[in-house]
Amino acid sequence: MSAMSLSVVFVLVGTTHPGNIGAAARAMKTMGFSELRLVDACDHLDGPAIARASGAEDVLRAAVPFGTLADAVADCRLVVGTSARRREISVPILAAREVGERLAALAAQVEAAGEGGVRVAVLFGQERSGLDNAALDLCTQQLRIPCNPAFSSLNLGSAVQVVAYELSQALEQVPVAPPEGPIKTEHLPATSEAMEHFFAHLDRLMVDTGFLDPARPGQLRRRVRRYFERSRPSVNELGILRGVLGAAEGARRRPGEETRR
Amino acid sequence: MSAMSLSVVFVLVGTTHPGNIGAAARAMKTMGFSELRLVDACDHLDGPAIARASGAEDVLRAAVPFGTLADAVADCRLVVGTSARRREISVPILAAREVGERLAALAAQVEAAGEGGVRVAVLFGQERSGLDNAALDLCTQQLRIPCNPAFSSLNLGSAVQVVAYELSQALEQVPVAPPEGPIKTEHLPATSEAMEHFFAHLDRLMVDTGFLDPARPGQLRRRVRRYFERSRPSVNELGILRGVLGAAEGARRRPGEETRR
Repeated sequence: MSAMSLSVVFVLVGTTHPGNIGAAARAMKTMGFSELRLVDACDHLDGPAIARASGAEDVLRAAVPFGTLADAVADCRLVVGTSARRREISVPILAAREVGERLAALAAQVEAAGEGGVRVAVLFGQERSGLDNAALDLCTQQLRIPCNPAFSSLNLGSAVQVVAYELSQALEQVPVAPPEGPIKTEHLPATSEAMEHFFAHLDRLMVDTGFLDPARPGQLRRRVRRYFERSRPSVNELGILRGVLGAAEGARRRPGEETRR
Repeated sequence: MSAMSLSVVFVLVGTTHPGNIGAAARAMKTMGFSELRLVDACDHLDGPAIARASGAEDVLRAAVPFGTLADAVADCRLVVGTSARRREISVPILAAREVGERLAALAAQVEAAGEGGVRVAVLFGQERSGLDNAALDLCTQQLRIPCNPAFSSLNLGSAVQVVAYELSQALEQVPVAPPEGPIKTEHLPATSEAMEHFFAHLDRLMVDTGFLDPARPGQLRRRVRRYFERSRPSVNELGILRGVLGAAEGARRRPGEETRR
């Protein structure tokens, strides 16, 4: 079953009320999800958290705090940021249902590849302010819960509930059109960790060639990042992109100059 | 539009915690619903109710208490009981999404009939025990929220949130957000012609750096092309990509070497 091959990790970022973490854990568990990660969040084992979890204390206790969001999503192949905001420079904004379809398609790919344990992350930001730009920069998609334009204020637990519901619906459904033929791991999206290495590599080239002035980067880094995250390259494609960077770098290096990696 | 011709009334039956009524009001309003009816419920204007409504106090204040459930649903053409229970003698049990489809079909009928103001009710029972048999006897359908069989304990606010979300999706109540403001040319996808220039440029760099052997290109060109075409860059993004290529090329060129374009 799809759900076996694809794990959805829920990541709470900057949550300020322990009760909301408990509510999120409960919402996740009702829909069959259990992997909770926390970044810069309040104490998830505080009294109100346990109380609101109400039977999902196991999810709460198994929650893993991470020092940075980049670490929390390092092993994930898609990173979906739940957000009510729109920004000019942006990854695609999909409705919750469309994200479900996207994940179901990925689950089918993963299954066809004979892989398992592949992870995707769904991010939920701080109660009032949501995800900030730095967090959205790590996302491959934004998720929008369609709602009343005049009152779009879902509380955190409700937002997690709706998203968990949609994703569990999507992942339990048999995909309409399974991909043709077996899919290899190299055709799956690269991990966030691998993407960070790529962006660092690209950045180095841009700086070394004088294309990017690190003192005045403007919007350049963000635009580059957004472009490549909008359609995250497969493992294989990322290998090619890294290869091109490495070749450009190596060729322009003067003979005798020491190798940097 | 469907939403004009069909009104969904949310009926809370026997609710014991005011906070849950507030949470239900908030959940309804986020999905564009406003008609709340109460039967045998606790005080819906108590402090915790107002607090949890958080911006949906108008829905709470407009809520109408009824003496009996029969009265509360008297003017409704379908009565849907949200329930985790199964009874041997029972009305059809539909998943939340199927109820949405049923209501959308009804809305179309109503519209074709030139009717308006037609009501349907969705019932939510007491927090722990749900709807009793007497209540289920007044239902034309039962609604089941598909969930984890080992942990199906959605709290009342979450159940209302999921149902309101599903119904608003089905009734297309919530307008899809239009893009904000006019779209600038630089944000439109690049032309095919511009893409060809880019691929030629990239090809030149790959060959010059020795990354691509033109005598044995294999699948490399196709893979590169497919990657960038899968999510065609905007005019602006393509400018950046060309800039990076140009900088890499320029920086590695020996001083005095003649410029190629």
